[in-house]
Amino acid sequence: MTARPANAHQARLLRLLRDAGPNSRAQLGDQVELSRSRLAVEVDRLLDTGLVVADGLAASRGGRRSHNVRLAPSLRFLGVDIGATSVDVAVTNAELEILGHIAQPMDVREGPVAIFEQVLAMAAKLRASGLAEGFDGAGIGVPGPVRFPEGVPVAPPIMPGWDGFPVREALSQELGCPVMVDNDVNLMAMGEQHAGVARQARDFLCVKIGTGIGCGIVVGGEVHRGTTGSAGDIGHIRVEQDGRQCACGNKGCLEAHFSGAALARDAEAAARDGRSAELAARLESAGRLTAADVAAAAAAGDATCLDLIREGGNRTGQVIASLVSFFNPGLVVIGGGVTGLGHTLLAALRTQVYRQSLPLATGNLPIVLGELGPTAGVTGGARLISDHLFSPA
Amino acid sequence: MTARPANAHQARLLRLLRDAGPNSRAQLGDQVELSRSRLAVEVDRLLDTGLVVADGLAASRGGRRSHNVRLAPSLRFLGVDIGATSVDVAVTNAELEILGHIAQPMDVREGPVAIFEQVLAMAAKLRASGLAEGFDGAGIGVPGPVRFPEGVPVAPPIMPGWDGFPVREALSQELGCPVMVDNDVNLMAMGEQHAGVARQARDFLCVKIGTGIGCGIVVGGEVHRGTTGSAGDIGHIRVEQDGRQCACGNKGCLEAHFSGAALARDAEAAARDGRSAELAARLESAGRLTAADVAAAAAAGDATCLDLIREGGNRTGQVIASLVSFFNPGLVVIGGGVTGLGHTLLAALRTQVYRQSLPLATGNLPIVLGELGPTAGVTGGARLISDHLFSPA
Repeated sequence: MTARPANAHQARLLRLLRDAGPNSRAQLGDQVELSRSRLAVEVDRLLDTGLVVADGLAASRGGRRSHNVRLAPSLRFLGVDIGATSVDVAVTNAELEILGHIAQPMDVREGPVAIFEQVLAMAAKLRASGLAEGFDGAGIGVPGPVRFPEGVPVAPPIMPGWDGFPVREALSQELGCPVMVDNDVNLMAMGEQHAGVARQARDFLCVKIGTGIGCGIVVGGEVHRGTTGSAGDIGHIRVEQDGRQCACGNKGCLEAHFSGAALARDAEAAARDGRSAELAARLESAGRLTAADVAAAAAAGDATCLDLIREGGNRTGQVIASLVSFFNPGLVVIGGGVTGLGHTLLAALRTQVYRQSLPLATGNLPIVLGELGPTAGVTGGARLISDHLFSPA
Repeated sequence: MTARPANAHQARLLRLLRDAGPNSRAQLGDQVELSRSRLAVEVDRLLDTGLVVADGLAASRGGRRSHNVRLAPSLRFLGVDIGATSVDVAVTNAELEILGHIAQPMDVREGPVAIFEQVLAMAAKLRASGLAEGFDGAGIGVPGPVRFPEGVPVAPPIMPGWDGFPVREALSQELGCPVMVDNDVNLMAMGEQHAGVARQARDFLCVKIGTGIGCGIVVGGEVHRGTTGSAGDIGHIRVEQDGRQCACGNKGCLEAHFSGAALARDAEAAARDGRSAELAARLESAGRLTAADVAAAAAAGDATCLDLIREGGNRTGQVIASLVSFFNPGLVVIGGGVTGLGHTLLAALRTQVYRQSLPLATGNLPIVLGELGPTAGVTGGARLISDHLFSPA
């Protein structure tokens, strides 16, 4: 795909077809407030580019039947979600429906060269399976702050080897298509906005609790990235004076006290000092513990694990309560690996927010788990690159 | 003034003339990306409405000299800033320059009827002085959350008698002109954006520390009011577990520990229990203490007062540090009555933010005092109503 919309009207039409699927010319006209003749001109130009194709006659609305149009069925986007301990790669059509999805464990600290070798192999595998002849664009998420216009990670605490690596440029060259790069949490927010629990939301927060903790901020339907691309970096908000040492160099940061990594450390300590027989048995057999072990032990009624989850939920809930007072969102979405901790976690988060924030801010505020799980990030990646490609060149 | 711009182009032209003053047609054309003929049509229509008037010939740029246009010099806006303990009323021209300004002490708890009597008397005084024949619109700030579309205060903790009072409708009737109502902190942010320290900023925070504490949030040049109008309500973020009782019903809120009101209470306690001879003398002579007494005593070297300011600055700084991590602003402006505490306060705030937030978010982050002082709110009020009037009807 080399064509791009020539103006804002064409861009609007492309996004409408992406978000609502095939549409008749008449229906499109209802939504864009263009004169009938101007609409016809813009749709014809999009048909000329090949981005849009005719799709038969629409059902009659009385009078002459309108023609259907849709985005070219051959368009393919690649969504890549690089987490701290795993990578997800998916291929979508132009409506951002996932056609194929592969996930693999990996360690982001191996650095960009090793990780991208793996990502490219996964993309090749999806292509070889016949789902795509090539990719028209790719959207990549990484677990750290990104200088967005250039697509370069900046001083990411949990992925030090990536600082300044030209992700966008390098992958664009390897894949032979346009690439956009963003923080993984922003991708999750965009995914939940496109196809998940935030479909109707204009102003919402998406809190991702995985190895670290971050927050996607959506204002008026658009991701707010901040002045230097670090907006949403709530993992390093201080929750305890003279608290635990954090990887960022400070003490008492939220993610030093609660996150997938912190929970694994706490669980191993509880196993070793005899506070949980369940965790001790799991440590004995696996050699290490993760948040998933805590979730399983809690589900089996282990009191120590329930306490760990509640305490972490309380701390995180206090931070979210502050953000709710500050930002007054219409929705808070909780996502990431730690959502395996389920309703014990959610109950603790909700209790803190509903107790601490003013009633005016929480009166109609839903606090819910994300709907898409591991497909949120890759869907968000496809959305990111499609937003870019469906903008005037 | 009854005319409103007929379309987005005219609205854009009116705002350009407001923000940049008289302009030649040629210069306007450089900024709005309209064809020369379309620009001529839109400017002519604005001349027909009377909102814009001709203003002689522009300086030559080579070739035919262009005509100057400007906003009608007779336009008058009223800016009203209702604080907890004082009210400011000013009249501006269409470029939002202050032509006259009156301030009076008052207590917002007297309720809307008594306060508006005072406000209307102040407006009448400005009119009687010959500064305005009438008002073309008024922008009002109140110290609490506002349901913005209707202009109605909602559950405001420090002004309980105002809950649900139809401020916009009532004042619009009394003044005989369109009225917009907003939180006082948002007005301060708009004022500093229009004519103060935030003139170049697109994404910034404006923290007002007065009787209470609040924060104006500007995203992409626009005030973010949140889903129910309570965005920026940072005074009720919890800074201490089981801390002091707050007027909102919770414990440990920021403004229960540091604000003009909290500082006055702390100062009276220090005077009574012998920790500050300076404060004791002032309490003896005045019968009560305010933040201004703490500022004066600190300036005279009183160690207890310096400690009070530092401790409050540290607490507030920790909250601002969290917001900087979350929002990644390009600028933080500190305003409100407590800025009389000056550089001791600013140093404490800066220390916390620069120490706790990630370097990526603070690298180029200025934290500065507002420039406009008591005129920020009234300038913001005039800006608020002009934004409304200079929008397509």
